[in-house]
Amino acid sequence: MNAADGSELIDLTRRIESGMPTFPGDPAVRVDPHATHERDGYRVSELRLGTHTGTHVDAPAHVDPAGATLDSFALEDLRFEARVVNCRDVGPSAAIGPDALPDSTALDDLGALVFDTGWADQWGTDRMPEHPFLAPETARRCADADVAVVTDALSPDPSDRESDLPAHRALCGAGLPVVENVCNLDALSMDGFELLVCPLRIDADGAPARVVARV
Amino acid sequence: MNAADGSELIDLTRRIESGMPTFPGDPAVRVDPHATHERDGYRVSELRLGTHTGTHVDAPAHVDPAGATLDSFALEDLRFEARVVNCRDVGPSAAIGPDALPDSTALDDLGALVFDTGWADQWGTDRMPEHPFLAPETARRCADADVAVVTDALSPDPSDRESDLPAHRALCGAGLPVVENVCNLDALSMDGFELLVCPLRIDADGAPARVVARV
Repeated sequence: MNAADGSELIDLTRRIESGMPTFPGDPAVRVDPHATHERDGYRVSELRLGTHTGTHVDAPAHVDPAGATLDSFALEDLRFEARVVNCRDVGPSAAIGPDALPDSTALDDLGALVFDTGWADQWGTDRMPEHPFLAPETARRCADADVAVVTDALSPDPSDRESDLPAHRALCGAGLPVVENVCNLDALSMDGFELLVCPLRIDADGAPARVVARV
Repeated sequence: MNAADGSELIDLTRRIESGMPTFPGDPAVRVDPHATHERDGYRVSELRLGTHTGTHVDAPAHVDPAGATLDSFALEDLRFEARVVNCRDVGPSAAIGPDALPDSTALDDLGALVFDTGWADQWGTDRMPEHPFLAPETARRCADADVAVVTDALSPDPSDRESDLPAHRALCGAGLPVVENVCNLDALSMDGFELLVCPLRIDADGAPARVVARV
């Protein structure tokens, strides 16, 4: 539709499909026929997927046994005044330092930061896990400012089994969600926008989501 | 957040959970542990569900072998100027006639109608399938006006195997999505609002969705 307020929606969501890339160890994704036109007169598919498939949100319970599950987040808690942080010049498997952040006054006014690492372009390649990650101090500053972290990479932490997930722990420890594997960031301007994260309504450790920028 | 434009988000979505009611014959819904804090140091769940689980959208391919799948609908095509139609006085398994619709001028200005049959209150009871349904003429008028149909019931057609799905066929035949099993309609005023339907991004016959009214 043409919105009365002139806003435009930009979809930052990856497609879910059989055999798509997942975080190592996560459930394989399958989309299979269930009812068919030939046999049943209508078509229904069955989905098998993990809660952290594709573009998704982590609830604090993902990393903290005592953390909140997704039911604690109303839609209003998943709508943010957001801004993109361009960190495409950070190298592979390197840390995004706190100097990448807006100044503290601007940070305090925001609800979420979208880290554009450029790693959306590596989706499905062997280099997926080599994405830049947040330095612990960068994550801590976001957590202190009550700013949720959104990334176009697999994780705001290094994607290896050695990581003890300091960024996740800082953010989720502050009760903030983490959003991973967004895409289509080129379509956003560097100015602020409203970000709406619409996960499946499941009371779990996270859920695949449709992530929408309203500009 | 408090939106800059003073808008409020109202969630019209049912929770997805193991063993929840489904349309007869649809896949059973399961949410199971996959990775656990005890064994893996973080928690991930596996989901099994049908594309027409809970609050969801039907793409035309659901009822028409040649119909469009969900990929044909950008988010902008799932954002509607919407209004509620109160049809709580229609009896069980009875038809909602075209006199329930707004006049044709108002209808032409709308993008979607949300039919409040009252059957959201029957969720999980034996009476779920006895919901009111759209008379074929009602569905045809919506299709002619390019108005999508949203219902708090299982279907805009009778939920029995005898139905040849005339409402679905009229609406999907016009390239319109159908949205089923919304809830929380009491929280809406009778005035117009923006409705945003955010399905999982799957190129299938339909998908579970987060359905959001912005008032």
